[in-house]
Amino acid sequence: MAEALNRIVVIGAGFGGLEVAMRLGGSAAQVTVVDQRNHHLFQPLLYQVATALLATSEIAWPIRHLLRRYKNIDVLLGTVVGVDKDAKTVQLEDGAMLPFDELVIATGARHAYFGHDEWEPFAPGLKTLEDATTLRRRILTAFERAEREADPVRRAAWLTFVIVGGGPTGVELAGTIAELARNTLPGDFRKFDPADARVLLVEAGPRVLAAFRPELSDYAKKALGKLGVEVMTGQAVTGLDAGRVVLGGEAIAAETVIWAAGVQASPAATWLGVAPADRAGRVKVEPDLSVPGYPDIFVIGDTAMVMSEGKPVPGVAPAAKQQGRHVGTTLLSRLTGERTPRPFRYRDQGSLATIGRRAAVVDFGWIRFRGGFAWWMWGIAHIFFLIGVRNRLAVALSWLWIHTTGTRGARLITQRDPEARDR
Amino acid sequence: MAEALNRIVVIGAGFGGLEVAMRLGGSAAQVTVVDQRNHHLFQPLLYQVATALLATSEIAWPIRHLLRRYKNIDVLLGTVVGVDKDAKTVQLEDGAMLPFDELVIATGARHAYFGHDEWEPFAPGLKTLEDATTLRRRILTAFERAEREADPVRRAAWLTFVIVGGGPTGVELAGTIAELARNTLPGDFRKFDPADARVLLVEAGPRVLAAFRPELSDYAKKALGKLGVEVMTGQAVTGLDAGRVVLGGEAIAAETVIWAAGVQASPAATWLGVAPADRAGRVKVEPDLSVPGYPDIFVIGDTAMVMSEGKPVPGVAPAAKQQGRHVGTTLLSRLTGERTPRPFRYRDQGSLATIGRRAAVVDFGWIRFRGGFAWWMWGIAHIFFLIGVRNRLAVALSWLWIHTTGTRGARLITQRDPEARDR
Repeated sequence: MAEALNRIVVIGAGFGGLEVAMRLGGSAAQVTVVDQRNHHLFQPLLYQVATALLATSEIAWPIRHLLRRYKNIDVLLGTVVGVDKDAKTVQLEDGAMLPFDELVIATGARHAYFGHDEWEPFAPGLKTLEDATTLRRRILTAFERAEREADPVRRAAWLTFVIVGGGPTGVELAGTIAELARNTLPGDFRKFDPADARVLLVEAGPRVLAAFRPELSDYAKKALGKLGVEVMTGQAVTGLDAGRVVLGGEAIAAETVIWAAGVQASPAATWLGVAPADRAGRVKVEPDLSVPGYPDIFVIGDTAMVMSEGKPVPGVAPAAKQQGRHVGTTLLSRLTGERTPRPFRYRDQGSLATIGRRAAVVDFGWIRFRGGFAWWMWGIAHIFFLIGVRNRLAVALSWLWIHTTGTRGARLITQRDPEARDR
Repeated sequence: MAEALNRIVVIGAGFGGLEVAMRLGGSAAQVTVVDQRNHHLFQPLLYQVATALLATSEIAWPIRHLLRRYKNIDVLLGTVVGVDKDAKTVQLEDGAMLPFDELVIATGARHAYFGHDEWEPFAPGLKTLEDATTLRRRILTAFERAEREADPVRRAAWLTFVIVGGGPTGVELAGTIAELARNTLPGDFRKFDPADARVLLVEAGPRVLAAFRPELSDYAKKALGKLGVEVMTGQAVTGLDAGRVVLGGEAIAAETVIWAAGVQASPAATWLGVAPADRAGRVKVEPDLSVPGYPDIFVIGDTAMVMSEGKPVPGVAPAAKQQGRHVGTTLLSRLTGERTPRPFRYRDQGSLATIGRRAAVVDFGWIRFRGGFAWWMWGIAHIFFLIGVRNRLAVALSWLWIHTTGTRGARLITQRDPEARDR
């Protein structure tokens, strides 16, 4: 019977899924990791790819290469379309079925448009490498269009960048786009000054970086202002179409709108046939992260709705990693026959966000930092968590280069824009 | 009248066009460089992006950044659709017209399928960054598919790579794909040994690297054989469709076929309303590189059919650069009123090609090298010709890393394959 207990399927190789797999590496379990991408992505630096600071290969690595040393782990490139929780199989898009004894769903989240999915084409989000290269293309193309545009009103629309959502991603995007316009691009264009570009950060709530202490939100707002970002809090987007965003009653002409507000969990709840626990579609799990009634199926990371010490665990990378480690340990101990459920407890390691390449805010709860020192803490922390010596070196060199020269290495417009011809 | 003589339009910012622009930088001419991409591409290393050795941003740079210091040069991102050689205007796709006093067409070439354009979807070529990331996706996906495939015959088809064309690009692709399969990937897969992959290099002519001396062709063939590449000379492709390539009468099941045979010049001849000079569609030019009857319109690089000392100038990067420099100098001297046409003379600087990451062939005409020493010469030459300190450093580090560890940093499957769902 030990044999039959061994087949563990992990869906998704993000921060959570990868952690589960690594914990089970070299054990007696027979592990299969399924992902629809061939790469693990370091999402916290994705905005730097979108703003031409880093190259795609500096923040992503082939999953099978990361797990190559564990001979008990198979990696499959495939798209999951369903889970049969009673027959214990995972269905892939191509018709293949993966039987499992234990299943971990770690499929993350996409951006959410709060019932306005029709906005997506006009305000893309940032979750995948393709999202990042698409955004990079749009941002860089906007400046190219401005150079071609003779009408000053139309030109201003090309030079207006609206970022919706004042969380860390929104703040980081707004800061780096402002720096791109004010520090990197001047001198490259003849017909206009890139420094005239408007960067608007729109937040529906009362302050940016709502997960941080109010004084850090205030600091972030001031630091963004210094970079030339117009921060608009208490402003919800009420309309969005090509070249136009509506805030309250006012329409702003902007050719580049980026969506950094809200997340929508992957369709794990649908696969499992359970009611989603919240508007984001997450799955409510037991304290040990298993699905109620199904002790062999676990849901972790952004897809899971977990309580820890009476508070919901936030959808951040460290939380996903901790959950992955927890479930990995649970599964390991089950291999030895131990089946007592162990409750997951979230350890808040603090929050970090950068504002451009000089300032950051760091909130550890018991102590807070801001400004240049916080930026260095942020940089060192992120380089430390990158996978592999080479990537750490590459990212450190890229940042050093950008820091000292102000030029960005990855300013490439790739992919053809299917819309470009029509507009 | 000096004012009216000044407007120079350069179409294309490849090796030739960029050289023209740089020569005219800081002069009294008012120069506009038009390109349909925002980046200049170091094409000789494109195969290394296709085979996951280098990242896209290591071999491409924004054109306007390269030319930023020259205030007399405008850079436009735009697609040329026609030239009115009598009214002296260039038409862009969006309806804009660029008037010129002098025009330089340096629009390069695409791959040619010799009247079989229907083969292109099944055997993509390698000319742009998108081509390279598409090829990278196809090559890496083939190994992923092999891991998923239970049928040994179908699996063998996923593990068969056919490169059509035995010129430098074909030889370099075949060598690096063989190394990817034999050195980089083993250990990453569970269901098969990547070293079992077949890499076939198919050449219609009697030998590979036909532009080199026969003894270097022989050496290249042997070196490829050592890497596990099957070299098939005297074999023309007679049929090609999804998963199948026909050589003579024999059909080979291969899911990845890459086209590295033959080039087709850009449609400059059509724009100019002249008969193309050869099957590749190139424009025959005068000894000074101007179009017959139109002394103010020049065609250079892969688009031009030029004779030098009785022999046609080859379609290689150094020839395009020399032509660009020649036309740039001609246009500079015209600014001072000098209008005597100066004939272009090609200086052959030798030919280089690598076979994997240990061997190369170098042919200077008067002296030839092969093997490891030639590889180092090739590497140093290419790093030297890369633009910018940072890129030289990045490429040198990437190569050093790959050389010492055997891992490749850019093994990312990006873009979704629209065909993948159907097959």
